[in-house]
Amino acid sequence: MSDDRRAVDLRIDARWLVPIARDGALEAHALMVDAGRIVALLPAAEADERYAPREAIELATHAVMPGFVNAHTHAAMTLLRGIADDVPLDAWLREHIWPAEMAHVAPDFVYDGTLAAAAEMLCGGVTTAADMYFHAEASAKAWIAAGMRAVVGIPVLDFPMAGAADADAHLARGLAARDAFKGAATLSFVLAPHAPYTVGDATWRKIVTIARETDLGIVTHLQETRAERDDALARDGMTPLARLDALGVTGPGFVAVHAVHPGAGDVERLARQGCHVVHCPASNLKLGAGIAPVAAYVAAGINVALGTDGAASNNRLDMFDAMRLAALVAKGTSGDPTLLPAQQVLRMATQHGADAFGLGASIGSLERGKLADLIAVDLASVATEPCYDPVSQLVHAASREHVTDVFVAGERVVANRAPTRIDAAAIAARARAWRDRIVSAPR
Amino acid sequence: MSDDRRAVDLRIDARWLVPIARDGALEAHALMVDAGRIVALLPAAEADERYAPREAIELATHAVMPGFVNAHTHAAMTLLRGIADDVPLDAWLREHIWPAEMAHVAPDFVYDGTLAAAAEMLCGGVTTAADMYFHAEASAKAWIAAGMRAVVGIPVLDFPMAGAADADAHLARGLAARDAFKGAATLSFVLAPHAPYTVGDATWRKIVTIARETDLGIVTHLQETRAERDDALARDGMTPLARLDALGVTGPGFVAVHAVHPGAGDVERLARQGCHVVHCPASNLKLGAGIAPVAAYVAAGINVALGTDGAASNNRLDMFDAMRLAALVAKGTSGDPTLLPAQQVLRMATQHGADAFGLGASIGSLERGKLADLIAVDLASVATEPCYDPVSQLVHAASREHVTDVFVAGERVVANRAPTRIDAAAIAARARAWRDRIVSAPR
Repeated sequence: MSDDRRAVDLRIDARWLVPIARDGALEAHALMVDAGRIVALLPAAEADERYAPREAIELATHAVMPGFVNAHTHAAMTLLRGIADDVPLDAWLREHIWPAEMAHVAPDFVYDGTLAAAAEMLCGGVTTAADMYFHAEASAKAWIAAGMRAVVGIPVLDFPMAGAADADAHLARGLAARDAFKGAATLSFVLAPHAPYTVGDATWRKIVTIARETDLGIVTHLQETRAERDDALARDGMTPLARLDALGVTGPGFVAVHAVHPGAGDVERLARQGCHVVHCPASNLKLGAGIAPVAAYVAAGINVALGTDGAASNNRLDMFDAMRLAALVAKGTSGDPTLLPAQQVLRMATQHGADAFGLGASIGSLERGKLADLIAVDLASVATEPCYDPVSQLVHAASREHVTDVFVAGERVVANRAPTRIDAAAIAARARAWRDRIVSAPR
Repeated sequence: MSDDRRAVDLRIDARWLVPIARDGALEAHALMVDAGRIVALLPAAEADERYAPREAIELATHAVMPGFVNAHTHAAMTLLRGIADDVPLDAWLREHIWPAEMAHVAPDFVYDGTLAAAAEMLCGGVTTAADMYFHAEASAKAWIAAGMRAVVGIPVLDFPMAGAADADAHLARGLAARDAFKGAATLSFVLAPHAPYTVGDATWRKIVTIARETDLGIVTHLQETRAERDDALARDGMTPLARLDALGVTGPGFVAVHAVHPGAGDVERLARQGCHVVHCPASNLKLGAGIAPVAAYVAAGINVALGTDGAASNNRLDMFDAMRLAALVAKGTSGDPTLLPAQQVLRMATQHGADAFGLGASIGSLERGKLADLIAVDLASVATEPCYDPVSQLVHAASREHVTDVFVAGERVVANRAPTRIDAAAIAARARAWRDRIVSAPR
């Protein structure tokens, strides 16, 4: 070995490296990590000559890929997982979810629930979550405790919730949380008004102003149900998206979650304005909302990311499940099995989620200079052999049980299927305790 | 303890027993197994007084339920898992699957592939598979080696395949396999003509005669694609189902796999004749075939079971995945979130599969006198806490990674997530070797 080899923190050799930045997988390659970033992806033999790693990991049967970006969740609602299934959407919300939230949502609920969500997601290969919930200061602490990257939504509603009396109070509190966590390298923030039907024009205008001043993006639930779109058409003479467009909300910093029911002109509007869509197939199906026209969005050049939504409506924070559903439903409802091929779905679950929240230059693919947010998926089980194509295998045969190791900014936050920073058993026990408290509470 | 306690082989105490025979779950109950059968399900305290088990298993965080019945698969095709994804159905079949089968299907392929499928399914909680493939004598050996229950399909085609020249040869060979394995308690047989479009009227008539003589059921692929139905309508003036009805094929022993595209009168015909439907949502979606009208079948009183189909079109033999897809797709495409509630889906994946193949009195639920085909699903992980409803949790939050123990006729064939009779690592290695052989074969 020559003396001029560069010292690096970590070398990972894997059966396959799935870079996302280009199609397919690299074999007999190594990935070098230093100071939390990817410094090289290169043939293993070349790596021997050029780098002197302080630590080396051999993953002989694994695919190593960027961690998943779960582009939409309500993490703390994990504590309400499956509290009310198989009921109509309206009853689900009004009779079950809202009463439980009114009674229990407080900083400790949010911290414990977010930590439970982080444990589930990390073990399932999710390294970044775009979250939308109350008490952002409590969720921020949980993300940091778990060692997981998060885009923390600053919730905005026109009515009182979680101790904030109105939109101004929600905004003030969320922006204070953002200021308090400015030094947290794994956190970023986004303005998260709940939906066009719960936030009025005056508040939307304030949000646009704040977004410009602070350079924050805006994410909202958009046209999740047909009724939402049609009610708005009847009332406003335009779709909710057209209204947001008129208010100056849309643009490359705008993320529309769900977008199940675009109206006339909406697909073109999203494309023209450079907006992003987050597709949450499990939640949309389970609540009977319908199926977003993902293939049409993709064909129009819109960046489509994937999300799980919250565990109360999904009931799992599982990006393998989201990928497979997105692919299967697109194929099955169109009759075209060539739609949403595995490579594209894998990209939606990683790079496209990063792009939606302005993180596309930092995470979402295995590329030199990006943060080392990586996962290892063991493809040597009876469920994943034989393997003709690792990309297809990751989408259609593997699931989160095959994720063995997870790195966030080069730190191994899951090792051999167990979180390293947090205690999964203790977190599960806390979730159980919350359930006991919730079911025994007077209603 | 009194002296008159009945000695039994095994006592299982679980956090929840999910009997399927009635809705919901039993808590603080025990299940007694003797000579391979369930002899009692009773309150734990009562069990202490009445039974003296030779072995006792405490599953303090688990749901114990009947093993899944995978009502449709082509087990040996596991060796072709993911060989050709994201391609049109016709090209998938003609350019990829059939050439690979022509070149490689032989008894060793079938044995190794079936064993790989059995390992995957057992670890995922499937205790019975209804299989349809060639070289039934080879697959039968594999099921026995794995300790898994199977309904072995006797393949019938009007053209040469796997060394059988015509329908008579296929039938003779399959019936000989049935005779050879008459003593195998875990195997039963069913006549499995491939499809109405590959089997002519003369052969169907022979099959009906043999079914009557041997008391065997009949299973076939039916109306999987719209083209299959519409081509038949144009050619025969009736749907494939109507044709089979006219030939005397339909009846309580007839199982229609897929049934994605019923024609006019077909739903009523299936109901009137007491036929069974096997719904394979993953395969139907992935190949772009469409979505079977399951809610309409259920409303008509038709017994609907669930299947994975083969790994070449799915690409996983995963009944958790099948349950969740069935529920989500029924809700999402109808807009009605109350359709296919969790309890019903769980029943489709167990008792209804047993009923379809004439095994409903022996397996499919936890009931006194039934065979002890049981699985234990650990619901104490971060992915499955909190648990408000174990039935919902099994369908929407749990997956096969949570299956820890599997019993077939009281024998523990999976213990702590590993098969006890077969070597999972060796089986995966054999699957890898087949892949190498298949990809390097001249085409």
